[in-house]
Amino acid sequence: MNSTNKLKILNDPIYGFITIPNELFFDLIEHPYFQRLRRISQLGLTYLVYPGAYHTRFHHALGAMHLMDKAVRILKSKGHAISMEEEEAVKIAILLHDIGHGPFSHALENSIVPGIDHEKLSLEFMKLLNKEFEGKLEMAINIFQNKHPKKFLHQLISSQLDMDRLDYLRRDSFYTGVTEGQVNSERLISMLNIVDDQIVVDHKGIYSVEKFIVARRLMYWQVYLHKTVLSAEFLLIKILQRAREVFTEDMLMPSALKVFLRGDLPESYEDLLNLYAQLDDHDIFSGIKEWQFHSDKVLSILCESLLKRKLLAVVSADDPNNDGKINELKKNVQEKYGISLKETEYFVFNKGLTNNAYNPTKDRINLLYKDGSVVDIARAADQLNISALAKPVTKNFLFFPKDCGLRS
Amino acid sequence: MNSTNKLKILNDPIYGFITIPNELFFDLIEHPYFQRLRRISQLGLTYLVYPGAYHTRFHHALGAMHLMDKAVRILKSKGHAISMEEEEAVKIAILLHDIGHGPFSHALENSIVPGIDHEKLSLEFMKLLNKEFEGKLEMAINIFQNKHPKKFLHQLISSQLDMDRLDYLRRDSFYTGVTEGQVNSERLISMLNIVDDQIVVDHKGIYSVEKFIVARRLMYWQVYLHKTVLSAEFLLIKILQRAREVFTEDMLMPSALKVFLRGDLPESYEDLLNLYAQLDDHDIFSGIKEWQFHSDKVLSILCESLLKRKLLAVVSADDPNNDGKINELKKNVQEKYGISLKETEYFVFNKGLTNNAYNPTKDRINLLYKDGSVVDIARAADQLNISALAKPVTKNFLFFPKDCGLRS
Amino acid sequence: MNSTNKLKILNDPIYGFITIPNELFFDLIEHPYFQRLRRISQLGLTYLVYPGAYHTRFHHALGAMHLMDKAVRILKSKGHAISMEEEEAVKIAILLHDIGHGPFSHALENSIVPGIDHEKLSLEFMKLLNKEFEGKLEMAINIFQNKHPKKFLHQLISSQLDMDRLDYLRRDSFYTGVTEGQVNSERLISMLNIVDDQIVVDHKGIYSVEKFIVARRLMYWQVYLHKTVLSAEFLLIKILQRAREVFTEDMLMPSALKVFLRGDLPESYEDLLNLYAQLDDHDIFSGIKEWQFHSDKVLSILCESLLKRKLLAVVSADDPNNDGKINELKKNVQEKYGISLKETEYFVFNKGLTNNAYNPTKDRINLLYKDGSVVDIARAADQLNISALAKPVTKNFLFFPKDCGLRS
Amino acid sequence: MNSTNKLKILNDPIYGFITIPNELFFDLIEHPYFQRLRRISQLGLTYLVYPGAYHTRFHHALGAMHLMDKAVRILKSKGHAISMEEEEAVKIAILLHDIGHGPFSHALENSIVPGIDHEKLSLEFMKLLNKEFEGKLEMAINIFQNKHPKKFLHQLISSQLDMDRLDYLRRDSFYTGVTEGQVNSERLISMLNIVDDQIVVDHKGIYSVEKFIVARRLMYWQVYLHKTVLSAEFLLIKILQRAREVFTEDMLMPSALKVFLRGDLPESYEDLLNLYAQLDDHDIFSGIKEWQFHSDKVLSILCESLLKRKLLAVVSADDPNNDGKINELKKNVQEKYGISLKETEYFVFNKGLTNNAYNPTKDRINLLYKDGSVVDIARAADQLNISALAKPVTKNFLFFPKDCGLRS
Repeated sequence: MNSTNKLKILNDPIYGFITIPNELFFDLIEHPYFQRLRRISQLGLTYLVYPGAYHTRFHHALGAMHLMDKAVRILKSKGHAISMEEEEAVKIAILLHDIGHGPFSHALENSIVPGIDHEKLSLEFMKLLNKEFEGKLEMAINIFQNKHPKKFLHQLISSQLDMDRLDYLRRDSFYTGVTEGQVNSERLISMLNIVDDQIVVDHKGIYSVEKFIVARRLMYWQVYLHKTVLSAEFLLIKILQRAREVFTEDMLMPSALKVFLRGDLPESYEDLLNLYAQLDDHDIFSGIKEWQFHSDKVLSILCESLLKRKLLAVVSADDPNNDGKINELKKNVQEKYGISLKETEYFVFNKGLTNNAYNPTKDRINLLYKDGSVVDIARAADQLNISALAKPVTKNFLFFPKDCGLRS
Repeated sequence: MNSTNKLKILNDPIYGFITIPNELFFDLIEHPYFQRLRRISQLGLTYLVYPGAYHTRFHHALGAMHLMDKAVRILKSKGHAISMEEEEAVKIAILLHDIGHGPFSHALENSIVPGIDHEKLSLEFMKLLNKEFEGKLEMAINIFQNKHPKKFLHQLISSQLDMDRLDYLRRDSFYTGVTEGQVNSERLISMLNIVDDQIVVDHKGIYSVEKFIVARRLMYWQVYLHKTVLSAEFLLIKILQRAREVFTEDMLMPSALKVFLRGDLPESYEDLLNLYAQLDDHDIFSGIKEWQFHSDKVLSILCESLLKRKLLAVVSADDPNNDGKINELKKNVQEKYGISLKETEYFVFNKGLTNNAYNPTKDRINLLYKDGSVVDIARAADQLNISALAKPVTKNFLFFPKDCGLRS
Repeated sequence: MNSTNKLKILNDPIYGFITIPNELFFDLIEHPYFQRLRRISQLGLTYLVYPGAYHTRFHHALGAMHLMDKAVRILKSKGHAISMEEEEAVKIAILLHDIGHGPFSHALENSIVPGIDHEKLSLEFMKLLNKEFEGKLEMAINIFQNKHPKKFLHQLISSQLDMDRLDYLRRDSFYTGVTEGQVNSERLISMLNIVDDQIVVDHKGIYSVEKFIVARRLMYWQVYLHKTVLSAEFLLIKILQRAREVFTEDMLMPSALKVFLRGDLPESYEDLLNLYAQLDDHDIFSGIKEWQFHSDKVLSILCESLLKRKLLAVVSADDPNNDGKINELKKNVQEKYGISLKETEYFVFNKGLTNNAYNPTKDRINLLYKDGSVVDIARAADQLNISALAKPVTKNFLFFPKDCGLRS
Repeated sequence: MNSTNKLKILNDPIYGFITIPNELFFDLIEHPYFQRLRRISQLGLTYLVYPGAYHTRFHHALGAMHLMDKAVRILKSKGHAISMEEEEAVKIAILLHDIGHGPFSHALENSIVPGIDHEKLSLEFMKLLNKEFEGKLEMAINIFQNKHPKKFLHQLISSQLDMDRLDYLRRDSFYTGVTEGQVNSERLISMLNIVDDQIVVDHKGIYSVEKFIVARRLMYWQVYLHKTVLSAEFLLIKILQRAREVFTEDMLMPSALKVFLRGDLPESYEDLLNLYAQLDDHDIFSGIKEWQFHSDKVLSILCESLLKRKLLAVVSADDPNNDGKINELKKNVQEKYGISLKETEYFVFNKGLTNNAYNPTKDRINLLYKDGSVVDIARAADQLNISALAKPVTKNFLFFPKDCGLRS
């Protein structure tokens, strides 16, 4: 086959075109592990609130790779050495950084394969691919694990201003229509620089960074931590939890999902990953559609609630330990649904959620001044509000069925 | 429950906000029949080519309702009488015009319920809802069927410049990123008018209409009739066809889908519709995922091809009856896959596709001049190219497995 | 003449279309006083930094009227009484709110007619127009002066979230290309409400308001107080000042400008305004183009600097009273240009500039909660950063000719 | 001075950022000849119809340079040889291609310096700059004149798909708000290619090119040949013509303009250009503002009409030689204004205007197919409407004062 036939340009509603750099990328993208990401929604069930938000991990991964291309080009034009091999490796690393995500992305993290997060799984998938591609992903894996000597390359994959974040904020804002969260990724990238092997932002980008932090915070409250989205996603988690609890061999569900609910996972990572690679959003939804008719009341009510979008009510709970209120709600649910008190925990529960727009204790966004000095943005003159944003905000919420609410 | 709690505003990446007019609309949208549209992709498998095109019938229906609101407001402001009842009815009609769509929209039309198109199903769903909502959809149904005295209301639902088309062209262009197909829907709507109970366009809109027709044609060639999209969708059709052919009771698939493949459909429309309302894209995909491991070679190869995106090759076939070429291809497939000659028809076939950007024999776009005269756009001065566009263009394509291609 | 001929729709790159409400508005817009605004740039000499920023007061006034139409419609839809007469009046008031602006808008305020600001002049123009239009602007004038009983109407003209601000931030961001300053005006307007005759924002708009305040601050630092823009505008002021100082009757310049530089202004406001209405950006530039060849060295150097874009250097001056530095610079200029020490003040000077993104001591932005309570946004939970933004920031700058800089 | 201080990035509302490639470009842009373009509006008086259309030749020249950078990068990535020197030269040529434009761009072409078009003047300015920059513009001048061996470089400057056109269509569409004329310049550029030293378009760009041609045609009818714009621009031409006719030394006007109206132009091109470089839009407007009070009735009426936007009426004139109608109009004007019959020709006249969206007799847009063949787009299959667009359309218009119209 002629190699030029493999060179492809993809349409992207956000960036216009995304170019696939070379044949290796083309083959990675065509790989079933990666094609699976077409069936993993980027934002879980967020589309129940924002009806445009159906974009997938597949699209995000390509977008992040596109931004990485821009970032590398900018940094090289500013005189920083990045070899051809490093350029390819850092692009592969970002392309594959989410390949370990399971159905509904974060929503079901730890629900399908308990105890292993998606980053660990991404790493294991990369290692498997590295074998298949005869070592060509070696440096990408090192960058991903921050074992490569040039640390700034890892920061482009994972830091306050990494390409992952710059793509997903822009993409999520675009598809949800929450324009307040819009981030001008290309502009921010054009102001990246390197000092002492660390990514910094040229000083003139101070207001762009500020806007980025504010936009990020808004996306958290308006999208990622939106009460109704959370309500739907907790329902999803409870459904999986209950399905596991009442699991029997004759339960209707997709075959791949059955293995995970049964829990007899293979020992070798390779076998586990290949099994895991069978799973996507369709399996979960197909299971739920069958279980709405299951004989277990808890399971069938939970499934029907999700399918018909009869989500749990969410209210701010100033006092998360107000047991009186919770107990009253549980009693209502018990009576109404005819289930045990223990089982009401599937329907009535408390959750605390924290939003931290800029967390300088984790890692910082540093500004590079014309005189060569480097300053944390939260300490830069006139950025009082950034330091305010650096304080985390926690809110408590109480979830319960709308038709079992409190008499007010 | 307080009625104001039901009034909702939805975010839309295209129009900004979509307002749900009143409680009746809210209840229709919350109805499981309508919520199902969240799980029906607008453009079938187009996302295999345009990775952003995951939008759903749910979103399109809301968008078309939003445009209808604008159209009604414009027409009223130009002095045309539209009663409050008619306004509500025409908005309901457009909201529900696609409620009969099945999995993957047009791609599987006639594959799930042979012989009944989605418009007929939409009408039946509306009648069912009319019963449930105690006759409140009566006028909407009349408008939908063009039985209402004011014919222009039906034209807003179904004609060359209806709200369906104005929304889907804009939305499909937006989500695919095919900017050439972008249509300025609001601008076109602002130039609508009525003469003799017919929708016309104010003369100054002549260039906007021209651009609309050109954009529509481009969307056909670049999206709706895109060779790779068609290749994927024919695969889908073939899969369903084969699954029906080799159907056995112990085949793994979602329960709802099984009824349709078995073919013992209920006699009453009501029962049929309620069964049909269980189906969505997830069922089809879950089936396909199971069948990639099915013992029937034809079925398993077709399913694996789709899941791993190893689609059939498509080439222009100047001579659709070149049997020699086809026979050679079939022989290749027979050998390679070890199947019967008859079975190769699943993999090697011819298709003719027609694109007709503006079909004045069906219905026209008429311009209203300042002197009151009304002229078909294709006859308006300086619109030579529109009359050119009015001629249908047909292209023939030959489909076959890439790995069984011709020696060249 | 047929009245319908006067109804017009204008294209606007930002809002799409702007509709002129009725014939009275049409006649006001066609009036030479208002047409003059086509020749008054909105942002003075900002285009020397942002080459797209050539938009005019004319366009801004129409845009603000357009937003006022939206605001009125929203507030009425929320049940607040606004009579037809009030609606017309508040739209007229916003249409004419800037009609008193002189050449280069704020840049030359107080330089052409010392001691009278543009708001006072706008009011006087409105009164003159009111006479000409036989009292039809009476209520508009009352609203403009906050003498109308419904105070919220004045707030739509002049307050933290008035239509003036909502248009100019959006428009200036659009034309400069400073996307960080983009404000979603329509979205903010959709969340306006009224409590106790005061404009408030529905609680769900909290993040939109936050983004508005941040965007406004960014626009100040990046555009309105941009060092190079200021450098150009101070040059403009100095030119007018010097031209007045060296004024002689045979100086070349437009006739209208001559009257103002000579200083023998008419006593009656009506005569003054009619004279003032002759002035626009062209006069100033024509004067400058002539004076680049004037025999007075100070004047000719200043004019040439502006025309050839050889602007003064600007540096942060931590210590505004560092006389040593200033004296050294002045000495350099004196030598280099061969002018008197006194005259060097045209070229070397200090300026302090203050940015106050949200000034709650002037007037507040209040949020309306679901329980009916009203809270200043700076005190709302989780808005620590807004209270940070409420503190004014002052910076000092030193201006001097680039070719007379300090030895470093 | 440090060279890095000269490297600049400019904001552009359309492309985001425009980078100035190197110091030579910086110095060319800073040159007074080029800075003058800041005071030359791109679209003459179009802003009288589209109030956002105040953009300048300065901005357009930078935009075209930006697109040239993209084009060069694309062509090089497709394996075509373009040396560093050629790359610089072709960018300089496009940057300076309009430097010879005079006040109001095309509107006054031939009115200021009769008999010499702006391209000739641009060439002369380039030659002058070449002397000043010690021969560094040599190759740019050769490319501009199509004397450079690689002919495709000239085509990037001047052909059906040159960077001039790709920028101005996009920019004019953006600033007028005529969204139907929007052209996706970057997308078109990404599909450029070279065959036999000619610019061609990759076959997959067929629909983008079609959209480009349609958009171009729309821009002609809706903007460039808009009746009201033409009415204003003919007024401008008539004003200059009359001012020349009644010229006396004591007429008030800017000094530079006076030389041109007097007509004693210098013999050497260098002197002429330096004089010409003094002129910009301000001079014309300042003249007009003075002349509205001139004693010559024809001149003063024309000037007042323009300043107060009392433009001539324009109607389609099917029969351009209907002398009866014209004579009646002239008689009306003669009576109403009290001028001679000869002088009425300033107010009543006929004009024929031709729009030719795609003129294959001049030069073609060729498509490159995968098999290497090259085909004129008008002959490509399915492009019937392009061949229709290739036929020129001429319309005749009659201009006359609104208040001297025909009794109907």
